[in-house]
Amino acid sequence: MQVKAEDLADLSLGAVFLATGGGGDPHVPELICSEALKTYGPVDLLAVEDLPDDAHVVSIGGVGAPTVSLEMLPSVDDAANTLKAYEDHVGRKVDAIVSFEIGGANSLIPITAAAGRGIPVVDGDGMGRALPEAQMMTYAIAGVCPSPAVAYDYAGNVTTFTTPDTSTYERHIRAMAMASGGMITTAEHPMTGAELKPAIIRGTVGFSIKLGRALRENRGRADQMLPALKDVFANSVYGECRLLYCGKVSDKATRIIGGYDIGEATLTPFSDEGDALTINIKNEYLVARLAGEVVATVPDLIVIVDYETGTPINAERLRYGQRVAVFAVGCPDFFRTERALKAVAPSAFGFDIPYVPLEDIKIGN
Amino acid sequence: MQVKAEDLADLSLGAVFLATGGGGDPHVPELICSEALKTYGPVDLLAVEDLPDDAHVVSIGGVGAPTVSLEMLPSVDDAANTLKAYEDHVGRKVDAIVSFEIGGANSLIPITAAAGRGIPVVDGDGMGRALPEAQMMTYAIAGVCPSPAVAYDYAGNVTTFTTPDTSTYERHIRAMAMASGGMITTAEHPMTGAELKPAIIRGTVGFSIKLGRALRENRGRADQMLPALKDVFANSVYGECRLLYCGKVSDKATRIIGGYDIGEATLTPFSDEGDALTINIKNEYLVARLAGEVVATVPDLIVIVDYETGTPINAERLRYGQRVAVFAVGCPDFFRTERALKAVAPSAFGFDIPYVPLEDIKIGN
Repeated sequence: MQVKAEDLADLSLGAVFLATGGGGDPHVPELICSEALKTYGPVDLLAVEDLPDDAHVVSIGGVGAPTVSLEMLPSVDDAANTLKAYEDHVGRKVDAIVSFEIGGANSLIPITAAAGRGIPVVDGDGMGRALPEAQMMTYAIAGVCPSPAVAYDYAGNVTTFTTPDTSTYERHIRAMAMASGGMITTAEHPMTGAELKPAIIRGTVGFSIKLGRALRENRGRADQMLPALKDVFANSVYGECRLLYCGKVSDKATRIIGGYDIGEATLTPFSDEGDALTINIKNEYLVARLAGEVVATVPDLIVIVDYETGTPINAERLRYGQRVAVFAVGCPDFFRTERALKAVAPSAFGFDIPYVPLEDIKIGN
Repeated sequence: MQVKAEDLADLSLGAVFLATGGGGDPHVPELICSEALKTYGPVDLLAVEDLPDDAHVVSIGGVGAPTVSLEMLPSVDDAANTLKAYEDHVGRKVDAIVSFEIGGANSLIPITAAAGRGIPVVDGDGMGRALPEAQMMTYAIAGVCPSPAVAYDYAGNVTTFTTPDTSTYERHIRAMAMASGGMITTAEHPMTGAELKPAIIRGTVGFSIKLGRALRENRGRADQMLPALKDVFANSVYGECRLLYCGKVSDKATRIIGGYDIGEATLTPFSDEGDALTINIKNEYLVARLAGEVVATVPDLIVIVDYETGTPINAERLRYGQRVAVFAVGCPDFFRTERALKAVAPSAFGFDIPYVPLEDIKIGN
């Protein structure tokens, strides 16, 4: 399978849905990726089982506060230059690139980096969604060392990191992102094919294109959107897709704190009568509470879409007065192990609530 | 000339005087350096004019908030490991080490790094005092590129930097210091001997030992201290040494902001009658005002010493109730050029006051 320029609109749309509010706006990265694919031709999308065990794979993507990506636009060459800086640093060629985060702009950056190099992108990623911190990645949870790693900033400055654990690495790259205008591109968590296989959420690039197509084909058809989404997710690593809420944004406030967008959104019914839905944000939508009762939490996906079109809305674009629908989607099984939940359960974000899988949460109505 | 273990007490004492309140407490670095010199023997102190033009020199020292150094003690191996990490990164051996800052602990770290390697330390430094930011160094002002540079943290994590300008580099290492517990050791601003010669403040290591000796020999002899200091400085790159004030610390407050110790100290006369002296602090003592009138500013040196013993007191050890004397000392000519003043005049620290050389400031009395 290949990723072609004409797949990118669907890929982006699906990736924003999977980004659960975070991941960075993919509009400009999509334009850049499209240009790269038109120039260099399609990029091979490789099923992870077809990857040789001794292949040298590195994950590439953007790190920073998503709001920054609306103002500090990435350069056309950032992705390729990050790959080159990584190869210069480790003194060897990379055989394949993998995304660390399918959600948002980071679905496109690996494809842009691979274009023109004749190397494939592995179909899958390290989150199956978007998550705000590096140690929440499946690669890190599976025990992959984050370094050698390279950060590339807007001015072409290169920083390299040698750290044995991802929590420390996360602190370092976050500091560098903040010191570099709020956003950097990193090449990190290098793996062999053998290391990647048990660590990856499989098939998410191809799935994101499929999801985007479903969103596009059912745009504006409210009656068909939910069944279409339920169907797409049922036949995937995710499982259930549930409509949580319909209403309007009555309050939304985030601030950049420590390199993250942190805050809360409140939704109220169109009629102004009935229970409010509140959503906690740290780059991503993390916890949804209906009238104070938890109805979905990370690592399950909480997604806000435009009520009329079904277009997913990232947290940095969520605004007072928007009419929206909110979906919850089950997360890949990888995240439901005890080891993974230590890194991605609500408690890892400072919320004193347990993780209850979406399927086990019964809502009043 | 050589630096021996028995020189270190004087070197430290002189270096704390030249640190003008910053530079980090040298007590633990002195113990570490002493151990290194006892183990490996003395380190050659090389006059810069004797350094071959094609020698590869790198500057090594600690970067961070001095208060942190009181609690997060450096490891015995930090200096040598930083040198090794630098050599691994650039793929060549270093011929000589130079201090980037004679003030405080950074006078000792280059000597510790050089011990046991059979390489000399150049007599001189990049500040002639202590200053809080990398772009205030003579090396940076003279146009030396800060990178390749390496940072080494308390846990042995290594970060490398490739940045063409020192202001960006400063932002990056400051962020890394904050993300690494508040203090890192860096090897940076690599130079050839030819590049170093016009960029260095000459002879400050040897001078610091001489100054320390004068402070030690006149300890507790208030009548002889000022003449002794005037004499030592008159025959140096500094020039005038002036007694600004005697009194007690009636207020002192600093906070760690952005990786710096920032705040203010107020001194009042022993009798409680008469004008107060206020001193602005950003790691170092930067501006002294007597009854609101500026009596000394950076880049000239402002030094607070214990009134009874003449022992210089770093900002992180300055406390309410201490009885102190305050000196001002002229800065090396290097800092009085227009180009240098852009980096080190009061305006570079956010003070809207001009730099007036100490000799041109007449005080009422």
